[in-house]
Amino acid sequence: MDGPQGHSPRWLQGLPAPAPEFKGQPEFNFVGGHVEADCVPVEALREAAAAAIAEEGGDLAMYNPTGGKGHAGCRRMVAEMLTRRTGMPCDPEEVLIVSGSLQALDLVNHALVGPGDAVPCELENYGGALTRIRARGAEPVGVRTDAHGMVPEALEETLARLGREGRRVGYVYLIPTVQNPTGTVMPEERRREILEIAARHDVTLFEDDCYADLVFAGGRPKAIRALDPDGRTIYCGTFSKQIAPGLRLGFLVADRPALAQLLALKSDAGTPAIEQMTLARMGPMFDEHCAAVQTRLGEKCAVLCEALDAEFGATAEYRRPEGGIFVWATLPAPVDTTRLAAVAAAEGVAINPGAEWCADPDHGRRSLRLCFANPSEETIRAGVAKLAEICRREFGLPERSANVSRV
Amino acid sequence: MDGPQGHSPRWLQGLPAPAPEFKGQPEFNFVGGHVEADCVPVEALREAAAAAIAEEGGDLAMYNPTGGKGHAGCRRMVAEMLTRRTGMPCDPEEVLIVSGSLQALDLVNHALVGPGDAVPCELENYGGALTRIRARGAEPVGVRTDAHGMVPEALEETLARLGREGRRVGYVYLIPTVQNPTGTVMPEERRREILEIAARHDVTLFEDDCYADLVFAGGRPKAIRALDPDGRTIYCGTFSKQIAPGLRLGFLVADRPALAQLLALKSDAGTPAIEQMTLARMGPMFDEHCAAVQTRLGEKCAVLCEALDAEFGATAEYRRPEGGIFVWATLPAPVDTTRLAAVAAAEGVAINPGAEWCADPDHGRRSLRLCFANPSEETIRAGVAKLAEICRREFGLPERSANVSRV
Repeated sequence: MDGPQGHSPRWLQGLPAPAPEFKGQPEFNFVGGHVEADCVPVEALREAAAAAIAEEGGDLAMYNPTGGKGHAGCRRMVAEMLTRRTGMPCDPEEVLIVSGSLQALDLVNHALVGPGDAVPCELENYGGALTRIRARGAEPVGVRTDAHGMVPEALEETLARLGREGRRVGYVYLIPTVQNPTGTVMPEERRREILEIAARHDVTLFEDDCYADLVFAGGRPKAIRALDPDGRTIYCGTFSKQIAPGLRLGFLVADRPALAQLLALKSDAGTPAIEQMTLARMGPMFDEHCAAVQTRLGEKCAVLCEALDAEFGATAEYRRPEGGIFVWATLPAPVDTTRLAAVAAAEGVAINPGAEWCADPDHGRRSLRLCFANPSEETIRAGVAKLAEICRREFGLPERSANVSRV
Repeated sequence: MDGPQGHSPRWLQGLPAPAPEFKGQPEFNFVGGHVEADCVPVEALREAAAAAIAEEGGDLAMYNPTGGKGHAGCRRMVAEMLTRRTGMPCDPEEVLIVSGSLQALDLVNHALVGPGDAVPCELENYGGALTRIRARGAEPVGVRTDAHGMVPEALEETLARLGREGRRVGYVYLIPTVQNPTGTVMPEERRREILEIAARHDVTLFEDDCYADLVFAGGRPKAIRALDPDGRTIYCGTFSKQIAPGLRLGFLVADRPALAQLLALKSDAGTPAIEQMTLARMGPMFDEHCAAVQTRLGEKCAVLCEALDAEFGATAEYRRPEGGIFVWATLPAPVDTTRLAAVAAAEGVAINPGAEWCADPDHGRRSLRLCFANPSEETIRAGVAKLAEICRREFGLPERSANVSRV
C-alpha cells in the first residue's frame, strides 16, 4: 500500500528513529539478557501450562479475575519464593505481578521521577534503566563502585551534594546482587550502610534484584528490602533470567500503600495470564532449577574468561563476575568501544559499548559488556577471537592473541 | 513493614489515586470487556500451548528471537486471518504483535498525539481510549453518530472547524464495526465516505477493530483499511474478545514505514511468547470458533434486552446492538448515571456510567453501558431487576417494572 499516493502520519517531534528491519540474530551475539536454550525448563513449563489451562482456562474470560495485582497463585508463589530465598518476609498482597521488570521500572519512574530530577545509581549501569530515567527528563547520577558494588561513602557524598544543590531525588537505584554490568555482589554489611545513608537523607531505594538467582557460588546475601526497617525499599525481580526472558514476567514488591500507588499506574488491563498461572505451579522445582542454572552459567562464564585471556591477554581488564550472564571488560586507549561495537556489528559480532552502560557515558568509552549465556561455548570462543581481530585491525590492540603476536 | 518509622516515597504531583483494595468481583458485573467462560476454547488453548512449548520452548531463552514485531508464526496467523476475514490484504511484515490492544493505543498516541492536539472520534466512545487521549494532554473531539456509526458530514464539519482553528489533529479514531458502546456497524459505503474526507484533510485514521469478530449476523463489512488506497489507516485488533482477554494479545497493522516508527516506541522487550506461540497454532479453528461465539453472544444479548424491556420498559431507550458484548441505554431526566453507578456499585451491581463513555461527558450523563458476555443469564436478569429497583429508589424511575407499578 506504499503507492505514490502514500500517506505519512504527522509524527510528533523527538521520536526515536524508526526500528531497523530485523535481519536475523547476529552470528556472535554477546548482547541482550538472553539465556541458554538448554537452561529453559521446557518440560516443566509444558506440564505446568497444560495443567493450568485445563484447570483454570475459564478464568481467561476475565481481565484480572483476582485483582489488578495479578494471579493470586502466582503472587503466592512469588511471596513464598522471596521469603525463602531473599530473607525478606513477603506477603502476597505486597506483590504486584508485572509484564517483565521493565514494566516495574516504568511504573516506578512514572510515579517518582520527573523532569530535572536526579536518580543516583551505580556509575556502571543497566542501559535499559539509564534510558528510561533519561526519557523522563531526569538525570542518572553515577555513584562510584568497587568490587563490592556501590561505595557507601560515594553515595553519601552524592546525596549531600544533590541536597546542597536543591535537586529533587526520585530514588536511589541499586542492583546489589550481581550488579549489571560489573557482576559484583554487595555484602550484607554494606547493604546496611546504604540503608543508613538512605534513612539519613530520607530517600526511597529501588532495589533491582533481577539477577540475584544467578550467584555462582556462596549463596546470596539478604535483599536490601529484607534489612530495611522503614519500608523505604521498592523491590523488583523477574523470571526472565532463571526461567526464561520470553515469558516477560516480573514482580514489584513494596509496602501496601506504595504498591497501591504503583498499581494505579498499571493501565494495561493486566499481565498475560497463561504465564502467571503457569509460573504459579513452578514453585516446587524452582530452587533446584536455579542451582542447575547457576552451575551451567558458572561454566560458561569460565569459557568467556578463558577466551578473553587467550585473545586479549592483559589488554582486557576485567573482574570475574560473581554471578549472572555478563562480563564487563575495559581496554586501553585508544580503543573506543562505541566505534568497536559498530564495526563489529557489521561483521556479525554484537557487543554492548560501555558508553551506553554508564551513567556517565565518557566513563564507559573503553569498556564493553559481553553476555555469555546464550551463545554456545564454541561461539563464545570464536566470537571473542573475531572481536580481538577486529579490535586489533581498528585500534592496534591487543598486540598478541593466543600467544601469537599479530602486529 | 508499615511501622512507626514508615517511609513514604516522594510521589510526583498529579498521579491517579492509589488503587483501591480488591474486594472480589461484583455480584452483578456489567462492566469490563470480559467474555463468557464457556466461550474460552480451553481445550484448543491447552493443546496448542502444550505443543508450542514442547516444540519451541527453547526459543523462550531469547527476547524476540524473530524480531521486535513478534513471533513469526503468530504474525503469519494474524495476517492470514485478516486477509481472509477483513478484505484487507495483509503481509506478516505489516503486523506488530502487541500486549493487548491497549498497548496499540499507547504506541499510536505516543507517536501521534501531543498536548493540545485534537482527536476526532465517535461521540459515544470507549472509556479506555478517551482516558488515554486525555492523558496525553489532548482532547477527544466527539463526532455525532447515528445507527450506522460516525456521521460523515459531522466528521467533515469537525475537521473543517479544527482546520479553521489551526488545531493539530493527531488522528481520527474510529470503531466502525461494533462500535463501543453503541454496537453499530458502519456500512461499506459510509467507510468510503469517511476515507474521502480523511484524504481531503490528509489526516491519519486509526481503526480499532477489536469487536469486529463478534457481529451477530450478516457478516461484517470490509475493514476501512481494506478500502484505503493511501495506507492512511492504522489498524488494530485483539484476541481478547473472540478468544480470551486474559491472553493480553493484540495486533497493530500499518504500512511498513509507519509500523517501523511505532515499533521504535515499543520498549517492553517483547510481548509474552507463550501466548504468541499458542495463538500461532489456532488459525485452523478460528473461524468456526468465532461463529459459535457470535451465536452465543447473540443469545445473551437477547436476554439482556428482554430484561431491560421487562424491568425498564419504555423508560430505557436503546438500540439493539449488531454485535459485541454491550448495550448502550439512555434513561430520562432526572436520572444521572454517574450517581446511579456509585449507588449500584455499593449494592453489588457494576455498570459503566455514560459520562465516562463519551467524548463530551455531559452527553452521557443519562446513559449507561451494560456488558452482558460474562454474567450468566440468571445473573443478567436478576442484576437488571436490581438495577431498576435502585434506579427507582434514587430517581423515581422506571415507574413500572415487569408490568407491576412500583411507585
